[in-house]
Amino acid sequence: MTPAENTKGTLAMDSERRADEVITHEVVFPQDTNHYGTLFGGKMLSWMDKVAYYASTRFCGQNTVTVSVEGIDFSVPVRNGDLLDLHARVIHTARTSLVIRVDVFKTEMPYTSERRLSHTGYFTFVALDDDGKPRRVPTLLLETEEDRRLFSLGAKIKEHALSRRKSASR
Amino acid sequence: MTPAENTKGTLAMDSERRADEVITHEVVFPQDTNHYGTLFGGKMLSWMDKVAYYASTRFCGQNTVTVSVEGIDFSVPVRNGDLLDLHARVIHTARTSLVIRVDVFKTEMPYTSERRLSHTGYFTFVALDDDGKPRRVPTLLLETEEDRRLFSLGAKIKEHALSRRKSASR
Amino acid sequence: MTPAENTKGTLAMDSERRADEVITHEVVFPQDTNHYGTLFGGKMLSWMDKVAYYASTRFCGQNTVTVSVEGIDFSVPVRNGDLLDLHARVIHTARTSLVIRVDVFKTEMPYTSERRLSHTGYFTFVALDDDGKPRRVPTLLLETEEDRRLFSLGAKIKEHALSRRKSASR
Amino acid sequence: MTPAENTKGTLAMDSERRADEVITHEVVFPQDTNHYGTLFGGKMLSWMDKVAYYASTRFCGQNTVTVSVEGIDFSVPVRNGDLLDLHARVIHTARTSLVIRVDVFKTEMPYTSERRLSHTGYFTFVALDDDGKPRRVPTLLLETEEDRRLFSLGAKIKEHALSRRKSASR
Amino acid sequence: MTPAENTKGTLAMDSERRADEVITHEVVFPQDTNHYGTLFGGKMLSWMDKVAYYASTRFCGQNTVTVSVEGIDFSVPVRNGDLLDLHARVIHTARTSLVIRVDVFKTEMPYTSERRLSHTGYFTFVALDDDGKPRRVPTLLLETEEDRRLFSLGAKIKEHALSRRKSASR
Amino acid sequence: MTPAENTKGTLAMDSERRADEVITHEVVFPQDTNHYGTLFGGKMLSWMDKVAYYASTRFCGQNTVTVSVEGIDFSVPVRNGDLLDLHARVIHTARTSLVIRVDVFKTEMPYTSERRLSHTGYFTFVALDDDGKPRRVPTLLLETEEDRRLFSLGAKIKEHALSRRKSASR
Repeated sequence: MTPAENTKGTLAMDSERRADEVITHEVVFPQDTNHYGTLFGGKMLSWMDKVAYYASTRFCGQNTVTVSVEGIDFSVPVRNGDLLDLHARVIHTARTSLVIRVDVFKTEMPYTSERRLSHTGYFTFVALDDDGKPRRVPTLLLETEEDRRLFSLGAKIKEHALSRRKSASR
Repeated sequence: MTPAENTKGTLAMDSERRADEVITHEVVFPQDTNHYGTLFGGKMLSWMDKVAYYASTRFCGQNTVTVSVEGIDFSVPVRNGDLLDLHARVIHTARTSLVIRVDVFKTEMPYTSERRLSHTGYFTFVALDDDGKPRRVPTLLLETEEDRRLFSLGAKIKEHALSRRKSASR
Repeated sequence: MTPAENTKGTLAMDSERRADEVITHEVVFPQDTNHYGTLFGGKMLSWMDKVAYYASTRFCGQNTVTVSVEGIDFSVPVRNGDLLDLHARVIHTARTSLVIRVDVFKTEMPYTSERRLSHTGYFTFVALDDDGKPRRVPTLLLETEEDRRLFSLGAKIKEHALSRRKSASR
Repeated sequence: MTPAENTKGTLAMDSERRADEVITHEVVFPQDTNHYGTLFGGKMLSWMDKVAYYASTRFCGQNTVTVSVEGIDFSVPVRNGDLLDLHARVIHTARTSLVIRVDVFKTEMPYTSERRLSHTGYFTFVALDDDGKPRRVPTLLLETEEDRRLFSLGAKIKEHALSRRKSASR
Repeated sequence: MTPAENTKGTLAMDSERRADEVITHEVVFPQDTNHYGTLFGGKMLSWMDKVAYYASTRFCGQNTVTVSVEGIDFSVPVRNGDLLDLHARVIHTARTSLVIRVDVFKTEMPYTSERRLSHTGYFTFVALDDDGKPRRVPTLLLETEEDRRLFSLGAKIKEHALSRRKSASR
Repeated sequence: MTPAENTKGTLAMDSERRADEVITHEVVFPQDTNHYGTLFGGKMLSWMDKVAYYASTRFCGQNTVTVSVEGIDFSVPVRNGDLLDLHARVIHTARTSLVIRVDVFKTEMPYTSERRLSHTGYFTFVALDDDGKPRRVPTLLLETEEDRRLFSLGAKIKEHALSRRKSASR
């Protein structure tokens, strides 16, 4: 990562930035499982939010907080002892918010080369200044066809969230 | 709750059931917060999943697992010391799955009568038999206008998830 | 809950209040058990204290802290996967302290309508002002025969604690 | 500790045994505190139960489980950074159960020689065989005046618990 | 990673393998700190062991367990809110054991491009078969000058551990 | 422990002090194990660091922080349910730092008199003043042959760490 910097060594918020990927790893232990020996869903959500937070904060160079979570799919069960790879990538930016896609892959023990996608989800964050007010975030640089496809997906995620909040308000 | 029972005292899975609400409470302590003293998002997701799990499992009378999470909105910040009320309610059932809506309300200390909605989200669960295969869940009884409105909302949540999985597959 | 309020929306401490019940729920996972697969006693004590804290704080509208714990009985074993309902109720108030009774019920999986009392206990709290000095708590309103029976039980709990502290001091 | 052993190296359950003390230590960190920076009561209860479990299990040489907790007094507040000494001692034995007294002392930082008693409580355990049935525990050897005074205190604790269970049953 | 596989898709243990690096990330929250707001050393050791475990297990394709830890240096303090990058790399293999070097870098918030090495350490693991007996591990492929320098460093780490165990035995 | 005190009841830092031992105990529960039911190495490192911290802080009477960890050997596997005794002892002091040796012994259930050394390690701490600068620590009093043997071992540990930092710097 080579972020654009101003003369003080802090990030320029009006800069354009590439969306490099953040990857973390977890190992499933008994403290993470439910009583049938599979990963407790809440623990996975917590891990996904943490890596999304890391990607969001590193991209912005400032404190960010989760404001919404969309479309988390649990595709295959995860079991005690499985190794997990969590990939987080900034896919969309607006003025003060950004969307992070998180993909989780699992590998069972004994370890083979077979790695399977187990979870996917989208986390929206906003950057906050010291008074807790939203502040501008860097603009995502779109370089490849994949960048543009994901940006468009992120835009739909945001749009859907917005329409849901309007229609589902009690 | 007075669930329909068969002669063995276990729940009849083909019964119709009312969607009673499960309410649980949490207190925000330093172990739940990030470094700016507000609740870590992943912790809230974990708490929401737990109460949804409780509601889902009690409704079905069998083990259930999270399969997707939709539309979680973080409306107001939650801080160290806040008291939380988490409300989970079954709003939709299909043959082997069900949708739970979770609403979280927070009250700040010193405690007043002012309680604010802080989080909302939808959790889809499936019921599993002993071999880990999906099994039939009870049918949600729709009695009031609100029951029907929420059922329709749950149906849209499911539909949206289905269309997302089709279009967003890599 | 519709607490008596003064004009500032904060609770009037000299008011009389009904003792509504706080119910919370837990699910027993491997992280909560000892090596024979039953709930670790210390974890249950921690859960009971948390719901008592919630009930005490909501009743007083102010910060409260545990000062003593009496008569906790573990009646039936609780196992991995059990669903728990924790009921906390204010049963006694004095000038600056209050007694909370906590009853825990467990339901085994697969879920039936059979729910069993597993734990009971009494937690005494005091309300503290901003300097950490005891402050007045609302008075418990006694309306039913049950209210009065429990108040009398709470009085005995307090009396017993007092006599124990006198006689057992080293 | 030099427990009486039979020829297989396991403890003879019909033996008489001295009540040696078990001491453990904890340090209070932010993860253990509530939002006003003092130790969360539930955490202390959990620590007290753990040291009582250790003392009970070592005395019996077999698995034991908590069956009741009596008379826990929180005498002085414990704060972030305090060092704790937890002393557990078997003070009473009956055929299948035993009573453990736990005293907790705290020392504040910067460390001086001043150590204050912060918590006291009594934990009753029963020993279980492999089928979960109560089994005989060793008999406590009473050698000093203090041993006898504490045994008598333990007897009162048991008696009180018994009378409470009779009278307070709902 | 493209590990050598046998016809069953499991890793061939007699293969030579490259030492690819495993990088994971953590965020320091209050639950990880001591009472002066810096990271609790034990938490860092636990995080370092987890990433070393991940690297060791992925390299071997089998269960591995920690057998010794050498030379962990804490160079700069880590504080609440810091972002951490943990790098683990297999640097040495013997017949049934392997040495993992772990380097930790920290970045403070607000985020700049300045990343500092905060911790380094060496973890030795052994691979175990289903009966808990040591089993053969793949051989580390040495391709670059850096590979050979680190291999030699790992050899010294092992040698030092061996001599310590001989001389320091009580 | 009867530390040398000055007239204010705080410890005199220029005093000589005996190296009394701190012993604490842990019980291994499922939350502490990996997926094969043995203790997770990172958890043990965390427990060893905590007892070393306690011993170091009590000896100095001031806040201390871990600066390096040397030579931790895992000798025998520790399993779910095992009882652990952790012994920490100050073995070496320099002007602003001190070395703590930690030995861990395990006893399996059902409990016999057989206790086995499972882990050993060395933790170096420095004492810090309120500004986070190193400050003087008390001098270790060497009274027995064993005191002197351990002091010499601690000196080698320090020397080795120093030479490693010089030669292994990247």
